Amino acid sequence: MTKAEKKHIKQLQQKKYRNEYRTFIVEGWKSIRDFINAGFIPENIYSATENIDNSINFNVEEISRKDLESISLLKNPKDALAIFFQKETNKTPSKGIILALDNLQDPGNLGTIIRTADWFGIKNIVCSNNTVDCYNPKVVQATMGSLANIDITYTDLAKYLNNANLPIYGTFLGGKNIDKITFPTDAIIIIGNEGNGISQEIEKLVTQKITIAKHPNAKAESLNAAIATAIVLSKI
Amino acid sequence: MTKAEKKHIKQLQQKKYRNEYRTFIVEGWKSIRDFINAGFIPENIYSATENIDNSINFNVEEISRKDLESISLLKNPKDALAIFFQKETNKTPSKGIILALDNLQDPGNLGTIIRTADWFGIKNIVCSNNTVDCYNPKVVQATMGSLANIDITYTDLAKYLNNANLPIYGTFLGGKNIDKITFPTDAIIIIGNEGNGISQEIEKLVTQKITIAKHPNAKAESLNAAIATAIVLSKI
Repeated sequence: MTKAEKKHIKQLQQKKYRNEYRTFIVEGWKSIRDFINAGFIPENIYSATENIDNSINFNVEEISRKDLESISLLKNPKDALAIFFQKETNKTPSKGIILALDNLQDPGNLGTIIRTADWFGIKNIVCSNNTVDCYNPKVVQATMGSLANIDITYTDLAKYLNNANLPIYGTFLGGKNIDKITFPTDAIIIIGNEGNGISQEIEKLVTQKITIAKHPNAKAESLNAAIATAIVLSKI
Repeated sequence: MTKAEKKHIKQLQQKKYRNEYRTFIVEGWKSIRDFINAGFIPENIYSATENIDNSINFNVEEISRKDLESISLLKNPKDALAIFFQKETNKTPSKGIILALDNLQDPGNLGTIIRTADWFGIKNIVCSNNTVDCYNPKVVQATMGSLANIDITYTDLAKYLNNANLPIYGTFLGGKNIDKITFPTDAIIIIGNEGNGISQEIEKLVTQKITIAKHPNAKAESLNAAIATAIVLSKI
């Protein structure tokens, strides 16, 4: 591997370079296969194992284990690393259950939300422009392949909600108990920021405030964002 | 602060020293108050703010911000750090809904599980001896005060389950759909290890295998342990 190649891969840890090149990093053969099978196009695949998967119709560059370790972002690097082109999703969804993320910041939370949404068959996630990048390496790793299965769009969330013409649910303290709600087949579910919840601008656009009932003796003041998402999706 | 004091606090990042001294670290006034109110006894409270909470009936040692930063484990240290004595919980629970953790390893997951369990009014968690320590600073921080509200016991899990005389539920692929289950008021719910699920030894003791139904098109092979816990608890 050239020094320039290594430098370029390191740059892709940063959002500004991912945005510039429209690419992102995936580590491990299993995940690489998942992305290829989901229609993502690899720009480069690097492998430190001779045991290269021949079912993949893309050129694989063999590199040394030392080189792989130097470009990997993982504590325990896997056997391969690939750079993929990002999927261009320009149109925002208008059907089915749509998750909308309002300024979610933690990569681990976003990864877990994508994995959980996939489990429950959600096809679309719409993110506010200030939500953490879904191509952040920590997000990609935490999704365990589910990222390949879901369309994720970044947009002006308020504008999208204004034009969506769908019922909009948001979790708040003091909303209607979700056990008493029958969700329609087409709806938007808003998940707020980890510390501050749903922003005031977005709150105004919510058509139904919902609540996950809390035990009266509980000390917990809120649920983790990914946990709240999972509970709402499991009710739907 | 003396060098010896600082060294002692750093030692408490390690389980062996926490076990030896039977103490643990809590950071931030809000969490410190939560633990005091829940009956935990502080060994020492260090504060870098002159704005000391006078409602606390314990001696608070004023230290410099620099000292606080040197003993804090947080990237952005809060205004205070306390060492608390661990609660001695020798007896294992026999009533209510009891969470049992079989070799859970991730501190963030354990913290989130404790916070979620508290939200749903669970009073008892029983951990296998090889489960991550609940007084690990990352766990304490992730629980957001809920740790103070729940009794957590470490024990030989197989032996406990054998003697518990309660129905034992465990999540498995291919178990009974949790939507079709009515949980009793007294039961044990087992949550397995992040990578390997419930161990074979414990699986034999499960009286009802349960499953969180997965969408047929989903790529996700499993749910995060904390997510699975939250969904099961919300159904109960």
